[in-house]
Amino acid sequence: MDRADPESAIAAAAARCSNAGRWGADDVLGTLNFLSEDNRVEGARQVRRGTVFSLSQRFDTHGPQHGWRRRTNPVHTMLDTGLDAARGQGFPHGLGGADDVVFMPLQCSTQWDGLGHIFDHGTAYNRRRAEEVVTSEGDQVTGMETAAAHIAGRGVLLDVGRVFGDEGELPDGFAVTTELLERTAAAHGVTVGRGDLLCVRTGRLTRARREGWGSYAGGPAPGLSFTTAEWLHDTEIAAIATDTWGFEVRPNEFDEAFQPLHQVAIPHIGLFIGEMWDLDELAADCAADGRFAFWLTAAPLPVTGAVGSPVNPLAVK
Amino acid sequence: MDRADPESAIAAAAARCSNAGRWGADDVLGTLNFLSEDNRVEGARQVRRGTVFSLSQRFDTHGPQHGWRRRTNPVHTMLDTGLDAARGQGFPHGLGGADDVVFMPLQCSTQWDGLGHIFDHGTAYNRRRAEEVVTSEGDQVTGMETAAAHIAGRGVLLDVGRVFGDEGELPDGFAVTTELLERTAAAHGVTVGRGDLLCVRTGRLTRARREGWGSYAGGPAPGLSFTTAEWLHDTEIAAIATDTWGFEVRPNEFDEAFQPLHQVAIPHIGLFIGEMWDLDELAADCAADGRFAFWLTAAPLPVTGAVGSPVNPLAVK
Amino acid sequence: MDRADPESAIAAAAARCSNAGRWGADDVLGTLNFLSEDNRVEGARQVRRGTVFSLSQRFDTHGPQHGWRRRTNPVHTMLDTGLDAARGQGFPHGLGGADDVVFMPLQCSTQWDGLGHIFDHGTAYNRRRAEEVVTSEGDQVTGMETAAAHIAGRGVLLDVGRVFGDEGELPDGFAVTTELLERTAAAHGVTVGRGDLLCVRTGRLTRARREGWGSYAGGPAPGLSFTTAEWLHDTEIAAIATDTWGFEVRPNEFDEAFQPLHQVAIPHIGLFIGEMWDLDELAADCAADGRFAFWLTAAPLPVTGAVGSPVNPLAVK
Amino acid sequence: MDRADPESAIAAAAARCSNAGRWGADDVLGTLNFLSEDNRVEGARQVRRGTVFSLSQRFDTHGPQHGWRRRTNPVHTMLDTGLDAARGQGFPHGLGGADDVVFMPLQCSTQWDGLGHIFDHGTAYNRRRAEEVVTSEGDQVTGMETAAAHIAGRGVLLDVGRVFGDEGELPDGFAVTTELLERTAAAHGVTVGRGDLLCVRTGRLTRARREGWGSYAGGPAPGLSFTTAEWLHDTEIAAIATDTWGFEVRPNEFDEAFQPLHQVAIPHIGLFIGEMWDLDELAADCAADGRFAFWLTAAPLPVTGAVGSPVNPLAVK
Repeated sequence: MDRADPESAIAAAAARCSNAGRWGADDVLGTLNFLSEDNRVEGARQVRRGTVFSLSQRFDTHGPQHGWRRRTNPVHTMLDTGLDAARGQGFPHGLGGADDVVFMPLQCSTQWDGLGHIFDHGTAYNRRRAEEVVTSEGDQVTGMETAAAHIAGRGVLLDVGRVFGDEGELPDGFAVTTELLERTAAAHGVTVGRGDLLCVRTGRLTRARREGWGSYAGGPAPGLSFTTAEWLHDTEIAAIATDTWGFEVRPNEFDEAFQPLHQVAIPHIGLFIGEMWDLDELAADCAADGRFAFWLTAAPLPVTGAVGSPVNPLAVK
Repeated sequence: MDRADPESAIAAAAARCSNAGRWGADDVLGTLNFLSEDNRVEGARQVRRGTVFSLSQRFDTHGPQHGWRRRTNPVHTMLDTGLDAARGQGFPHGLGGADDVVFMPLQCSTQWDGLGHIFDHGTAYNRRRAEEVVTSEGDQVTGMETAAAHIAGRGVLLDVGRVFGDEGELPDGFAVTTELLERTAAAHGVTVGRGDLLCVRTGRLTRARREGWGSYAGGPAPGLSFTTAEWLHDTEIAAIATDTWGFEVRPNEFDEAFQPLHQVAIPHIGLFIGEMWDLDELAADCAADGRFAFWLTAAPLPVTGAVGSPVNPLAVK
Repeated sequence: MDRADPESAIAAAAARCSNAGRWGADDVLGTLNFLSEDNRVEGARQVRRGTVFSLSQRFDTHGPQHGWRRRTNPVHTMLDTGLDAARGQGFPHGLGGADDVVFMPLQCSTQWDGLGHIFDHGTAYNRRRAEEVVTSEGDQVTGMETAAAHIAGRGVLLDVGRVFGDEGELPDGFAVTTELLERTAAAHGVTVGRGDLLCVRTGRLTRARREGWGSYAGGPAPGLSFTTAEWLHDTEIAAIATDTWGFEVRPNEFDEAFQPLHQVAIPHIGLFIGEMWDLDELAADCAADGRFAFWLTAAPLPVTGAVGSPVNPLAVK
Repeated sequence: MDRADPESAIAAAAARCSNAGRWGADDVLGTLNFLSEDNRVEGARQVRRGTVFSLSQRFDTHGPQHGWRRRTNPVHTMLDTGLDAARGQGFPHGLGGADDVVFMPLQCSTQWDGLGHIFDHGTAYNRRRAEEVVTSEGDQVTGMETAAAHIAGRGVLLDVGRVFGDEGELPDGFAVTTELLERTAAAHGVTVGRGDLLCVRTGRLTRARREGWGSYAGGPAPGLSFTTAEWLHDTEIAAIATDTWGFEVRPNEFDEAFQPLHQVAIPHIGLFIGEMWDLDELAADCAADGRFAFWLTAAPLPVTGAVGSPVNPLAVK
């Protein structure tokens, strides 16, 4: 990787890793195509104890967002409360009710990037033109509703933070390379392959939980190296998720760049990327029992035309 | 049931079915306490083929809401689009991105009622005072975040519409009684018991899909009879969901009433109620293979303090 | 006007009435340039009694919108209420407070169209390219903030409904022509000229107030004839406002068309258009005292980059 | 004023300054009752040159709010853009359009506090119970819509910053006393009296403009001393507005307190308070021509039930 020539590096990786056309010109699922019914059967076999873990952060006014590109924290307001109910709301026979509403960017907290989220030189997934895919009315082709009934299968955790970090946490700017991913899998005694839903823990959220949000949303962070593009492509995983804001290492590894691995992974590989997942409790359990595979569902909200989606992923062991 | 004396009927059912105190004074989970790890293991055993079904309607501007108590359809807007990306957004090396935001009532489409959603004479679940539980800052006790890591287990479908309806659809005002629930279970060869996540299909959504929304949100509908309160309590199910707006039959069975079964089910039984679920595709599959039990996850979005939550439930067979 | 050839009619009117370049290539004010300090002095002279009239409808959940192009009614929710204050909010010495938030389309009720609201064949006001002016980040050139300090001057009411309608109301589809505008002015004994803020009452809102909203937002209505384009240009008025949803007559006068007068008025004349103004109380007063000129302020909210703005216009006589 | 006994000081001021009942039990206007038609005639006489000044800050994503009590900056998003129009939106004959939506706290930028905004020991304006006035459905009595047609009259600027500040700016914590207000009026050669709309400039916004927002919203600031309550009452002004977030001096003058002058001014005096007004350009003009009275309109948006309102005040000289 030539740090001084990101354009060429991105173009080369895009060419090497493209899944464009692989599942036909009409495909809207990208790497979710790898997630077969057999994967789900295999995933369900991972349920031994019946223990469940939510991998979601809270959707909270006091979350990590600080307004970059108008990404704010959710604002949750009440339409009716228990105080109104106690005072009387006009319902018969003592019925009272509370109701609520939320305003939130779809990427404000634990979320999926949809295939319409990132473009490379105006190209969206499957060689579509960005401007034909995502207009002001939303993603006309690969909106989140198209992924509503897919993301349930075998989850695998690679706890790179625990294996290579200092007290479980990788430092900001730490690039997780293919070699480290593979050594982590070996240390865990787990394999990563076709159709898997891969979770990579860096420990960044653990630190934010201890130190406060700081620049968790958008600042320096450990994360995947740009050089993992081939591995992400070749393993044929169905999706990947991390405990960081942006999945890839920040600052990025080129002298001047912004999220170059996204630029390959989404429009070319067609990879579903999960961000800001909370992997800590699951990771502690995996470390304790030595089993790093589990059943995972992470169903996006089918907001019509959405390019991202809040999600509460559930892992079951 | 004396149709002319709803107050007494509600009070009697509340007394008969109360789970208040059952799991301690601090309990926030209600019937989710029935959902054990063993239930999950049993639920995972239902995965045979690996086929997945989303039980969610879309979250769409053209949804069923028409503003009752300020419940509107979601409004999804873009922060950046493919057109902006094609024009140039100032990112280096050809990166482009789309982002989005949503404004929505938390009960606008497929959802869970939280335990803070309904009160009986100012009493919330577990004998709490409504005004102590849900203020303008949200549900301080039983907010949806407390239910984040629970709702995964054995799902059971009772397709009452298919068994007793005309071409699969029950008419508006049709009260689904305990007897009909049990006869449906018998017809399906399935049992309903402790910890199950029960889905009841009436066919109301099937009709809305064919005829248009009309008064789907809030109008007449088939649904559970008030008299099922005891059965809902005694079966010790963990949750129930239907394909209707309001779970119980509308018009309600008393001369003057508004959602009296809610008034017993939520604050007294502590029951999690799912509404506006799309059970049609799953139901067709169950009818085809004769298997009405499956794995089900229905993870609410952990919006801090929320009294309801949008959800994309996934059933796997 | 050839009803069968709207393209040519629009093009001809656009060429005839264009103010592009009139105030320089950088101009962002359009017809507000006509509103001089002398106009304001003359306007202030109209204040005789000191009586004030709000020309705004309420911004209300129960307003006229029904979701066309995602235009909903405003949703107003509370962050804190008097009930919370009565219960205690943690402030010292008995202080309590209520706070609120609104979600609303900027054209949901009484409003101004900004110059970035309408384009003709991709051209915005002052021969700019639409795609250079209004991106997903808003109007980069003619955003409402640029009009913040202008709209105060001499207002004139032409109550066409009162002069030519049946009991003060023109029927749907009634085209208000230049001749009718001039005859109304003559009947009122008022002149319309350079820099004036012109209000035209049709009586459509009066009817909605009596009959309910119906299709007030977007349906048939009386309004200005396409043929008034020249008069709107030649009078050199600073702005025009009506009591209808769309200012021009609906259905439009061509066999197939959508708001063709907008297409000339905004991008070519650079005219500020107010819609859904409530002129009834003012009109009654003008009819009573025979004075149809007054002081008018109608200050748009300077939402950065907005292409429209809610407004509460105040007329003072 | 006993700094150690705020309870007594507040109670004494409240008793001394109460206007409760002054305009009848049904009154919803408070000090706006002082603003007579004669005041408006006198105000209009101040228009000499026809120069207009907007006293509004922008409503902008990059505004001063940082989430205190869920007060965020406005989020403005587009429903349609010029890019969509250039691509084609399905309208006939080349028409294109842009539309937009905003989500904002009603007190996010330049605004009016409504009479339902602050309570004293559960009492709202005119001896009403807070919980009877402002519920989750909004202010049922003194909602902003009731003030829609009033706030136009004679404005007066007291530029305390210019008279007593260092280079026009008072420091944080600087309490503007009655004596200083009167000496400023004397220095300006202007009187303040019944029905006036009073603007007090401290220079705090000038500093924020130079240094960045910092803690402009909610932090230390110059402002009115608690001891001005009597003057605010006795002058019989119709409203007051400042260039600060909170109108009164911060930190407040008691050892422990939060906005004690609000607690007297709103529920007892019934005073309309404007905050975050931009008085700089107007102030420069007043200093230049020596005239500190002007015509002022500051029409709140009539959002039904609102306890505050964004506003774009226009001063005309």
